[in-house]
Amino acid sequence: MWFLRVNMTDRSAKLEGVPAQYKNLGGRGLTSSLVAEEVPPLCHPLGPNNKLVFASGIITGTPANTAARVSVGGKSPLTGGIKEANAGSSWAQDLPSLGIKALVVEGQPKEKDKFWGIHITWDAAAGKPKIEFFDAAEYTGANLYAVFPKVYERFGEKISIAGCGVAGEFKYGNSGIVFNDMSKRPSRYAGRGGLGAVMGSKGLKWIVLNEKGSPGVPIVDKALFEQGRKKMNDALRTHDITKPKGGLNTYGTAVLINIMNEAGGLPTRNFSSGRFEQAAQIAGEAIFEGNKKRLGQELYNHACSPGCIIQCSNTWHDEQGKEISSCVEYESDWALGANCGIGDLDAIAEMVDLCNAYGLDTIEAGATLGVAMEAGVVPFGDAPGAINLIHEMGKGTPMGRILGAGTGAAGLVLGVTRIPAVKGQGMPAYEPRAVKGIGITYATSTMGADHTAGYTIAPEILGVSGKQDPLSPEGKAALSRAFQATTAFIDTSGHCLFIAFAILDIASGFEGMVEECNGVLGTNWTNDSIVKLGGEILKKERAFNEAAGLTKAHDRLPEFMQTQPLPPHNQVFDISDTALDSVYGEL
Amino acid sequence: MWFLRVNMTDRSAKLEGVPAQYKNLGGRGLTSSLVAEEVPPLCHPLGPNNKLVFASGIITGTPANTAARVSVGGKSPLTGGIKEANAGSSWAQDLPSLGIKALVVEGQPKEKDKFWGIHITWDAAAGKPKIEFFDAAEYTGANLYAVFPKVYERFGEKISIAGCGVAGEFKYGNSGIVFNDMSKRPSRYAGRGGLGAVMGSKGLKWIVLNEKGSPGVPIVDKALFEQGRKKMNDALRTHDITKPKGGLNTYGTAVLINIMNEAGGLPTRNFSSGRFEQAAQIAGEAIFEGNKKRLGQELYNHACSPGCIIQCSNTWHDEQGKEISSCVEYESDWALGANCGIGDLDAIAEMVDLCNAYGLDTIEAGATLGVAMEAGVVPFGDAPGAINLIHEMGKGTPMGRILGAGTGAAGLVLGVTRIPAVKGQGMPAYEPRAVKGIGITYATSTMGADHTAGYTIAPEILGVSGKQDPLSPEGKAALSRAFQATTAFIDTSGHCLFIAFAILDIASGFEGMVEECNGVLGTNWTNDSIVKLGGEILKKERAFNEAAGLTKAHDRLPEFMQTQPLPPHNQVFDISDTALDSVYGEL
Repeated sequence: MWFLRVNMTDRSAKLEGVPAQYKNLGGRGLTSSLVAEEVPPLCHPLGPNNKLVFASGIITGTPANTAARVSVGGKSPLTGGIKEANAGSSWAQDLPSLGIKALVVEGQPKEKDKFWGIHITWDAAAGKPKIEFFDAAEYTGANLYAVFPKVYERFGEKISIAGCGVAGEFKYGNSGIVFNDMSKRPSRYAGRGGLGAVMGSKGLKWIVLNEKGSPGVPIVDKALFEQGRKKMNDALRTHDITKPKGGLNTYGTAVLINIMNEAGGLPTRNFSSGRFEQAAQIAGEAIFEGNKKRLGQELYNHACSPGCIIQCSNTWHDEQGKEISSCVEYESDWALGANCGIGDLDAIAEMVDLCNAYGLDTIEAGATLGVAMEAGVVPFGDAPGAINLIHEMGKGTPMGRILGAGTGAAGLVLGVTRIPAVKGQGMPAYEPRAVKGIGITYATSTMGADHTAGYTIAPEILGVSGKQDPLSPEGKAALSRAFQATTAFIDTSGHCLFIAFAILDIASGFEGMVEECNGVLGTNWTNDSIVKLGGEILKKERAFNEAAGLTKAHDRLPEFMQTQPLPPHNQVFDISDTALDSVYGEL
Repeated sequence: MWFLRVNMTDRSAKLEGVPAQYKNLGGRGLTSSLVAEEVPPLCHPLGPNNKLVFASGIITGTPANTAARVSVGGKSPLTGGIKEANAGSSWAQDLPSLGIKALVVEGQPKEKDKFWGIHITWDAAAGKPKIEFFDAAEYTGANLYAVFPKVYERFGEKISIAGCGVAGEFKYGNSGIVFNDMSKRPSRYAGRGGLGAVMGSKGLKWIVLNEKGSPGVPIVDKALFEQGRKKMNDALRTHDITKPKGGLNTYGTAVLINIMNEAGGLPTRNFSSGRFEQAAQIAGEAIFEGNKKRLGQELYNHACSPGCIIQCSNTWHDEQGKEISSCVEYESDWALGANCGIGDLDAIAEMVDLCNAYGLDTIEAGATLGVAMEAGVVPFGDAPGAINLIHEMGKGTPMGRILGAGTGAAGLVLGVTRIPAVKGQGMPAYEPRAVKGIGITYATSTMGADHTAGYTIAPEILGVSGKQDPLSPEGKAALSRAFQATTAFIDTSGHCLFIAFAILDIASGFEGMVEECNGVLGTNWTNDSIVKLGGEILKKERAFNEAAGLTKAHDRLPEFMQTQPLPPHNQVFDISDTALDSVYGEL
């Protein structure tokens, strides 16, 4: 396999052998290592010295299931620190199938506002991938749902697409990298941290992959790999949360709306309450029942990417049974719903689709809209007003630019004091005052406020791997640390994070993950060594952040969470600075 | 003397004795000590836990000359660190005359967008100041030139006024604290770092002082004080830069336009060149000659505050001889002129006046406009466009809010990579690539990019205290360190920083400053001990900043200055990180 380096200054491409120290890495482990090694920590995130790195997981592209994840890394224009965001897509499988272990985008065109695409195919004669650049001007300034079909039309139906929307072209702090889903929609996002803007700053609109004829991903020990794959699949097919017609397949991630509301930890109206009185109207159950009513039959969820067993992506339909959005995920549903005081699924689904169309991260968009509502730009609960503000982001108006800059920056510009963000990045759908462990993850993660960085919700709310009291601060620093390290490995493996529910409860599933990786790489990793490897990845990320100016002072939740008690539990975030500092201090 | 604590949560006021450790401090030394001691470093700058501290200099309010300075301190909404900004005004004298050594504004009203004033008079019967609150609603949302006269009308002609403009009401990162000049204009600013927003966040519009009948500032050793005062005055009256009809009195600070342009260090069009082809049209000489032509006679400059010998404030008149602006200072002239590619004094003066009217810092405004022009919001050189953008700031439109947020934030929101700012604060009128020492001051100052924090321009450009090559990096860290420490003391003494020209060249002037302070306080300070005291103040400020999350990584100039050579010298900023870190490392 190769590293493919693409230089956008002169639009050149170069294949390099994979250095030994990177051979056993993939996904986040690889993107974070390359960023830490090669990007000057104090460079401007939108300047020529930042790099945008794509790397699929270790097992991605093999027959492993629920494992089509690609990580994207760089210095974040949103947090000012290192960033990894990942997505599930056929693109994730096609990149390593083409022999590309990492794609590193470097440089910047001299011309302003010129956009290019890259088309990568397999050159059978040469026995290596072939890289061609094309002018992408015709696809810019447009709704992604409108231009994705044109790319398929031009390059064929078998391609996979990565790209950025207008949010990336505008260089917003809120801008994701979009990937195609299984129905060719621009709906799968490496959403967080503004990596779309890094792509936009490099004048790169599309990376189109066609893996036809490519050799695929080599597997060193096929028997071991198959053994691991079977253990993993059995775990996924058994666990109540991940099994077919289980929690996620039936109600989608939005099954969490009622659960979090019940726990008093569903952030409502810009984190001013932990309960939303219209929660039931936007919950996963309401989506399932609403679809049944509108379609006349039960609808179970679909996979975001090939080979997934869990299949958690829902679709929401209008009264005529026409699709409004293919993916009203919990986070999106919450961000654009409860956090904005909006209880109307049709409006929420429309907003999700608009975010996808413009290249925005739904979590950041909703967290920012909450701040805008707090500032009085539009009132809480004003769905047409909120929809209009997303359109402003899509148009790049001054208000659109303010909101597109992300939660921290928008709060600053709008003069708001209740800004639910860490390191500039808006908080996801769990209230730290009601679920203490996740607050520690938000505070200390190298990524800014990010639930996926150490999802302590599993034990604190869902009882996965034992139940812990969400309101108690006891032992939560250690819990977050363990989850952050394990997660860093899962993000490296190529598995979707949702395997965690199954493998934390079912020991053979965890073994299966390790065996899959050992099978592919020929390594001898153990359960312990993969957690250690996760910790090493975190340390690299943290060292980059320190050099970029992020300190202990940035590993804190915003002041209001320590001073304003949250209804209904009327608790503040009471984790000590010492405990917060121990997360990485004792790593 | 007392500390006056005003709590805006319940609009109460309290006089306290001055604790022993603060008795020999004043100005910046006092505001920074109180902020470092009492403000939580991680508080939101616009929240109830920040404090706004006013303290006049040690000798302010005595007959000392060129010494009517008041420092304002708090946690800055612009830099996120500690902030001290000072201004010259009769207000500076009236505060200590009323027996108030420091005025500390605390808390925050529960009601949003309510504004109050404070009226402080001398209660002869009680032998202490009397503090009354009044509703200030009628003065909000208005041009300061329109409402200042109403305050004089209400409280009498003998008052002094401190306040904030709409910029502070809107809580902009660019918002100063305004003070009256000698002709009752709202034109003297503690401008930098957004302290107007801190005042606005506390619902405080005005602090009106009437010192009638007050006891004045006590002087422990009158003879020593008089001896020092005479030495200082002799130095000021002798030095070519500060003497009557000398450089500053004739051409104002804008005398520097031609000098800096000649040195290739006049930042032009958002720091893309060090030479401005229209520099001569906006230079101090052009102001002097233009006024002579329009008025039919020579016009020398006036004092910003009572008792000043230097008298450097110019006035610019229109063709009909009517005043456009009372103070086209070098920094303002450059910021709104050369930095925006604008060579028209009438337009520049109009912009200066608009900034004063809205409560904006002219340096920050011009640095931000340069970034906006780089982003293409309006073209470089478009004076009507620039004027309109200042009006947008005054109106609080979305674009106005973006620009009002200051240079760093506006650059972020507009997606610009050439952002001339340190710690978010826009750079003043000296190009670090052409004058290396001032670049070190910008990088390392506790205040963000601030020329007044360590004005190495004196030796590097003006040959004051010996001439040093501006382009050479040699010895500049030590130079900046010495200037920063001495400056911290001058800002504590109450003298205007412009005494530095005279006292650095004339040893008896320096002695005079020390003797004035010893005379007032009864201390035995020496030349060495005041520099040491300055260093102690810097250390306190820096410790606050570290706790607030500002690290070595924030003591750097923006990346572009290290990678893009600046015409005409085609140099980059080549001071090593080690040298930068030695400024405070060896303090």
